[in-house]
Amino acid sequence: MKALRDAIMNYGQGLGSDIVKVDMFLNHRLDTRLMFDIGRELADYFRRENPDIVLTVEASGIAIALAAAHYLGDVPVVFAKKSSAANQSGNMLTAVAHSFTHGNDNVLRVDRRYLPAGSRVLVVDDFLADGQASRALISIVAQAGCSLVGVGIAIEKGFQPGGKKLREDGVNLKSLAIVQGIEDGKIILADD
Amino acid sequence: MKALRDAIMNYGQGLGSDIVKVDMFLNHRLDTRLMFDIGRELADYFRRENPDIVLTVEASGIAIALAAAHYLGDVPVVFAKKSSAANQSGNMLTAVAHSFTHGNDNVLRVDRRYLPAGSRVLVVDDFLADGQASRALISIVAQAGCSLVGVGIAIEKGFQPGGKKLREDGVNLKSLAIVQGIEDGKIILADD
Repeated sequence: MKALRDAIMNYGQGLGSDIVKVDMFLNHRLDTRLMFDIGRELADYFRRENPDIVLTVEASGIAIALAAAHYLGDVPVVFAKKSSAANQSGNMLTAVAHSFTHGNDNVLRVDRRYLPAGSRVLVVDDFLADGQASRALISIVAQAGCSLVGVGIAIEKGFQPGGKKLREDGVNLKSLAIVQGIEDGKIILADD
Repeated sequence: MKALRDAIMNYGQGLGSDIVKVDMFLNHRLDTRLMFDIGRELADYFRRENPDIVLTVEASGIAIALAAAHYLGDVPVVFAKKSSAANQSGNMLTAVAHSFTHGNDNVLRVDRRYLPAGSRVLVVDDFLADGQASRALISIVAQAGCSLVGVGIAIEKGFQPGGKKLREDGVNLKSLAIVQGIEDGKIILADD
């Protein structure tokens, strides 16, 4: 997706061998026009699957999830809440996502009432690296008795295993930009 | 604002004497159409002030901030990150917001680069109760050398002191719905 590729090349920073810093437009400051462009692109890709809920995880996924939901006909968004605590109420669906970046486990939780059984759920997130968050959301979709129609991602780190594993599992995964690697601080993108 | 009032009356739950639970449409499941309606209403109210950045705090503020920013001409959104840790880098503007609900202090932090001095900043959030989060964001706006054009809120808890204090301080505050109190589990709204 050209607008996203341009933003990554113009404003993204590669740090060390694996950190892709895109604070400037995706996960601290939000480039509003780009959020809508990303949402529209994901909506166009998954529209034929007729998703009726967009599921993401707080916080950075919310903006593109809302935009995608808008272009899918204003379907609702549900965002999983993150907490380190494992306390569980009967109404909450939970799954653990390990964070390699922070070295801790997050418990993602979604109120069961907001994923009615039989719903067709599109999972959306800003980043895909090891795939822990996506897998946790997919687990929650399954626990809810919903169908996963696919996973839409803004930026995939292609040099980490999350995307490959999801594709091997037959998940309909669409990443709008794939980072192949970082060389001397420069972010290398895969061809579209 | 009628659509928001209707959502509160139809789907909101009053718990105890002071909890307004609106998970169903505002801060866990998002009613996408309503998020845009709220954003448009805030944008219309503050448009004459020419805000060029919308500032909020993760996570629940992001959706209405993005929608407001869209109707203000796709100005950027910046969302403050919340953490309990006090570690500070030179580039981060920080302010403490005490949470009466959770009984802890959150440190809100914004990268200084994303609030260029002289910017006209609209602060947006889903809730206003004690005003701790709004005041922390206002402090960050001042630290950045920016102008605060106003504070736009979806739901104000009028029986808590945050809104009154902000108005006394001369802040241009617009709350789209004001909860007067909770009686026997029923949410009582102030007249528009």
